Amino acid sequence: MTAEPATDHLVLGREARELLFLAARTPNTFADVPVSDEQVRAIYDLVKFAPTSMNQQPLRVVLVRSTRARRQLLARLHPGNRAKSATAPLIALLVADLNFHHRLPEVFPHVPKAHELFSDKEARENSAVFNATLQLAYFIIGVRAAGLCAGPVVGYDEAGIMADFFPWLDRRVLAVLNIGPPGPDPWFPRLPRLSFDDVVSVA
Amino acid sequence: MTAEPATDHLVLGREARELLFLAARTPNTFADVPVSDEQVRAIYDLVKFAPTSMNQQPLRVVLVRSTRARRQLLARLHPGNRAKSATAPLIALLVADLNFHHRLPEVFPHVPKAHELFSDKEARENSAVFNATLQLAYFIIGVRAAGLCAGPVVGYDEAGIMADFFPWLDRRVLAVLNIGPPGPDPWFPRLPRLSFDDVVSVA
Repeated sequence: MTAEPATDHLVLGREARELLFLAARTPNTFADVPVSDEQVRAIYDLVKFAPTSMNQQPLRVVLVRSTRARRQLLARLHPGNRAKSATAPLIALLVADLNFHHRLPEVFPHVPKAHELFSDKEARENSAVFNATLQLAYFIIGVRAAGLCAGPVVGYDEAGIMADFFPWLDRRVLAVLNIGPPGPDPWFPRLPRLSFDDVVSVA
Repeated sequence: MTAEPATDHLVLGREARELLFLAARTPNTFADVPVSDEQVRAIYDLVKFAPTSMNQQPLRVVLVRSTRARRQLLARLHPGNRAKSATAPLIALLVADLNFHHRLPEVFPHVPKAHELFSDKEARENSAVFNATLQLAYFIIGVRAAGLCAGPVVGYDEAGIMADFFPWLDRRVLAVLNIGPPGPDPWFPRLPRLSFDDVVSVA
């Protein structure tokens, strides 16, 4: 699959590396095989342990399963993204709870007044979006850990999705996520990655 | 370590689950064992394959190694975060390249004018921060894949770090990341996680 480096600096086993990063790909087609709530529960119960600032855990997930909700959501995607999502056995909305601070007494109990640190709306919303975005990435890795493919989509009518799904405006949409096993001819060739020397510098 | 579910919906092996999510923790102390550039290269060469929108890869990493740079950075952390970072064998700055679009002809070559989609500065910076935040999460998982602990810190004087490290203002600081093996007495008790039913709903 991939060339073995001369010295192996990773502890994670090779199969896991392939499953999560090296062989995993964003698919262009999905197989028509249902994704159960139990599979999503297993994914969530794995990735919920990954870190967020002050353990705030602002990510919320809506599984778009009913025919009506699915039709609504597909209509809000940019036209170029519709056909691909329409083949996904499960489409999820991954969003930030902009009022996550109400849960802080529960999830950060040793600082009873932690929620008061987020009384400023703009600071609170920035923190919600930042931490829920981390959790979106963990969730993508979790989908792969379940042997499924994750296809994040960010081209959509955000105001339309808000109006259809979150009319109380207490959420921020981060991504639409196509979830399922890959279908026929699922991948384009892998796109180039920036090299270590392009990305990492030393100060 | 953790209770085995009745039906196992994950493909990822149990050792990998423990390493990356279940046993992994954000440490409060680090062991005084160097983290080499080669270890960071192995981490990057694993996580660089995880997805970003249009393959834009805006994350940049600065390894803060010199005595002077390390002293500068520690002085910019909120006082409560300094002692912990001071024990980390490696401190990295994880930042978004706000001008990532200059690399799009290389990393998204099948759409030669992709960079023109990011001519609007605000849209470009939002995209840089969103995608680099996804990559920050992947990087945290990668640090764990190398058998090391990752301690993200977001309490710092951002303007001060910008002035010291990025005076050209072409970056956005996402996190300071403490990296290394855990030291003595490294963990507080695990904080509570929100349940599946708190986080996931069906539409």
